[in-house]
Amino acid sequence: MQVLVSNDDGVDAPGIRVLAERLAEVGKVTVVAPDRDRSGASNSLTLDQPIRALRMDNGYYRVAGTPTDCVHLALAGLLESEPDIVVSGINNAPNLGDDVIYSGTVSAAMEGRFLGLPAIAVSLATRDHIGEHYASAANAVMLLMQRLLVDPLPADTILNVNVPDLPWESIKGFEVTRLGKRHRAAPCIRDNDPRGREIWWIGPAGEVDDAGPGTDFNAVSRGYISVTPIHVDLTRFQALEKVSSWMQSLSDAIDHGEEAA
Amino acid sequence: MQVLVSNDDGVDAPGIRVLAERLAEVGKVTVVAPDRDRSGASNSLTLDQPIRALRMDNGYYRVAGTPTDCVHLALAGLLESEPDIVVSGINNAPNLGDDVIYSGTVSAAMEGRFLGLPAIAVSLATRDHIGEHYASAANAVMLLMQRLLVDPLPADTILNVNVPDLPWESIKGFEVTRLGKRHRAAPCIRDNDPRGREIWWIGPAGEVDDAGPGTDFNAVSRGYISVTPIHVDLTRFQALEKVSSWMQSLSDAIDHGEEAA
Amino acid sequence: MQVLVSNDDGVDAPGIRVLAERLAEVGKVTVVAPDRDRSGASNSLTLDQPIRALRMDNGYYRVAGTPTDCVHLALAGLLESEPDIVVSGINNAPNLGDDVIYSGTVSAAMEGRFLGLPAIAVSLATRDHIGEHYASAANAVMLLMQRLLVDPLPADTILNVNVPDLPWESIKGFEVTRLGKRHRAAPCIRDNDPRGREIWWIGPAGEVDDAGPGTDFNAVSRGYISVTPIHVDLTRFQALEKVSSWMQSLSDAIDHGEEAA
Amino acid sequence: MQVLVSNDDGVDAPGIRVLAERLAEVGKVTVVAPDRDRSGASNSLTLDQPIRALRMDNGYYRVAGTPTDCVHLALAGLLESEPDIVVSGINNAPNLGDDVIYSGTVSAAMEGRFLGLPAIAVSLATRDHIGEHYASAANAVMLLMQRLLVDPLPADTILNVNVPDLPWESIKGFEVTRLGKRHRAAPCIRDNDPRGREIWWIGPAGEVDDAGPGTDFNAVSRGYISVTPIHVDLTRFQALEKVSSWMQSLSDAIDHGEEAA
Repeated sequence: MQVLVSNDDGVDAPGIRVLAERLAEVGKVTVVAPDRDRSGASNSLTLDQPIRALRMDNGYYRVAGTPTDCVHLALAGLLESEPDIVVSGINNAPNLGDDVIYSGTVSAAMEGRFLGLPAIAVSLATRDHIGEHYASAANAVMLLMQRLLVDPLPADTILNVNVPDLPWESIKGFEVTRLGKRHRAAPCIRDNDPRGREIWWIGPAGEVDDAGPGTDFNAVSRGYISVTPIHVDLTRFQALEKVSSWMQSLSDAIDHGEEAA
Repeated sequence: MQVLVSNDDGVDAPGIRVLAERLAEVGKVTVVAPDRDRSGASNSLTLDQPIRALRMDNGYYRVAGTPTDCVHLALAGLLESEPDIVVSGINNAPNLGDDVIYSGTVSAAMEGRFLGLPAIAVSLATRDHIGEHYASAANAVMLLMQRLLVDPLPADTILNVNVPDLPWESIKGFEVTRLGKRHRAAPCIRDNDPRGREIWWIGPAGEVDDAGPGTDFNAVSRGYISVTPIHVDLTRFQALEKVSSWMQSLSDAIDHGEEAA
Repeated sequence: MQVLVSNDDGVDAPGIRVLAERLAEVGKVTVVAPDRDRSGASNSLTLDQPIRALRMDNGYYRVAGTPTDCVHLALAGLLESEPDIVVSGINNAPNLGDDVIYSGTVSAAMEGRFLGLPAIAVSLATRDHIGEHYASAANAVMLLMQRLLVDPLPADTILNVNVPDLPWESIKGFEVTRLGKRHRAAPCIRDNDPRGREIWWIGPAGEVDDAGPGTDFNAVSRGYISVTPIHVDLTRFQALEKVSSWMQSLSDAIDHGEEAA
Repeated sequence: MQVLVSNDDGVDAPGIRVLAERLAEVGKVTVVAPDRDRSGASNSLTLDQPIRALRMDNGYYRVAGTPTDCVHLALAGLLESEPDIVVSGINNAPNLGDDVIYSGTVSAAMEGRFLGLPAIAVSLATRDHIGEHYASAANAVMLLMQRLLVDPLPADTILNVNVPDLPWESIKGFEVTRLGKRHRAAPCIRDNDPRGREIWWIGPAGEVDDAGPGTDFNAVSRGYISVTPIHVDLTRFQALEKVSSWMQSLSDAIDHGEEAA
């Protein structure tokens, strides 16, 4: 089995090393990851500049680019043969609820899926980005990966996995979950730089709003590994009918040469 | 009515000016947009650096940040009162099918939705990024916006609108669509810089794969305005049951102190 | 006469517009300047990425690069015929004493000199980057330029000009100056970002140390236009003799197969 | 003895490791260097964003900033006690002649000098950035450093050292040199990116023009270690008299209320 490993914390982060070494027990692992912490990079793809990949002494590839760049470059350029699966992580903080839309960890997995491969994003639910039990998250990936390869998910689906930062034997189990919700983000923080000019910092994520039963927040807080299926097709099918009901009258506005007022 | 306008082509792009001026006929418009072309930025949010907003002579805010930064900063800091809707665009190229996951235009609208507002992303289906009929796209937004404000969509849904680059009277009508699909992206392009070092460019997007009836590709190619509802909750609900069926055996692996092998 | 104009405050800064419009009275002016404020960029040259130049509606070129990139690209690529002189500015703050080593304004002029042209860097000695009398600085450039073109300086020399922010008729005169000195820079400012992680800001420049007679600080503070000849050959000729006296004994260390200890 | 070591090739470059390990034989070494290759950064100083320093497992500090940022942060913030000297390198390519104005290696040393310390910049004269004999360059630094500490140079002077990429015993000796000159840089290289948009690459440095006796080019090409004293005061004192002769007539233009025409 061949595995492509990436992340968004950067190629030197502890989580990616634990993950790569664990996966190397069962397959050939290639690591292609950003040279810097790119948390929050989302599915950002570098279109206006070339990217560079440097092979490090330990065989990992260090890329001056985003997590999505890394996976795209690996699958559409760097690697000679196609891997069987893409695994992104182990992120040094949880990716729960609304966080996933910004997450570079999840995006790296999504890019794998776009390019045709099963993919898992995995995060350790640390506080303050300092993890102790990356090995637990690596264990969870091993189990899920084996399952995923024999029992594939639909082509537009990846798994977003969040693992409590606990020793393996203290973890209560696995739970399938939906994404929870946060309250609206805290306000931006206004400040002045040392030269007296105004700056703004994006504020912290909002407090958890919907952490009810069935959510990823809920599972992790109770000591379970949260496994959320995520789709990469953003069509909101349930809204098609409603929006469809508008179309005729809108189209009429064109036929009548009518401009909106 | 108050409207927040952003984009990913940058505050100086022609599309945002046409859009802002058209919307100003019916409401108070605030423009907060990136200082550079940030196409491909996706939902990237700048967490590790402060951002700056400069008010230009024409009243627009120029932000050294991503489209998501712009909308976030506007709604959670810069604006004194909350707008009624967020409109992102008019992008100088289509955002169809798989493109939307990378699109800064769509992401700016999603950020509006995250922060509680209805939102529309609008793109002009130009070739080569040079648009002629931005006014047609502005017209489409006017009509959709009026409808959206009286007949709101569910809280997790935005509209992704693609408008053929045609005079208003040549447009055939509106169609509600699902996202189409592209073939896998072209390979990365390997080159050497003038100093002899290897570089890679992300290759062009793949050719259209699924442009069948009902897709956004199909509507635009036939001269219709494509309106795709997009959700911002990435949970793949249809896969919950299947993944759920795995959970017991996976959890057993923990109970038995079993490590994956 | 043809003039290339650049700066480091960015192509939209007020100073560059005043300068370009004034120079257009006596020659053909081409403006090639950074798309963002690049103060502090020094002679930084972008070697690892391509740069892009966008021709704006007003004919100015906007470059996503450093001031040095702008002048280099203009002279070694963009312009069809070679200008007679390079003028960089009008900077929105003084460039005095030790500041010049970091200054993008001065560097743009140096790059012109490297590529074979006479060059002037000009700054308005504002407080807080908000200038009132850019026209005075433009006047000073006009006078110096006329002189420089008939009575050229040695090939390794440019002029660094600092103009008090006063109406033209209130300026006392021109003075030739040497660079003054600042005290050591203030300490870096340690802070935490909103996520609790340590950051550092480069502190303000040090207080003026040597502002004695003959320095640029002194001239400007007394209401004079300071004109400092700056060389682009960094050899410290006066130290050649001393360092030369070391050479024999150092070379002996090699002859004797001796390693330093 | 305490030594601050930095470079512009990045904290993971081979040259900085050889240098730091060699210097550790005679003193306490602190390494503070950029996280990426920042060749060409010149004296660029990051004023508009905060910078971050990460202490790596091996005790080196990795800074997301320029070489000048690294030395400035180390001396004005990070280090508890002041080092005795700053050494920058070992660069993986020569820094000869006009190159020094752009060089991040030389700039890191200049920043040390600005902040009051003796400083040496050292480069290995490799072809193609792949060095074999970094140990020779480390040896040269050791010898020069010992001399510099007992026999200091004037406060505005640093040493720029270029070492042939040869085994120590094959090096012919040390020579004090002036900076040579290159011909004008090659033209920029115009290209199109894969999306059909124009890009420009800064071209290679010009061929050597003045490599006559006494220049750094000459010394290195003959197998000698080139030692060039460099000043950090850019005043061109020899031109003061000439420029001075212009001042009266220029000042008259102000007195007479005369505007340049």
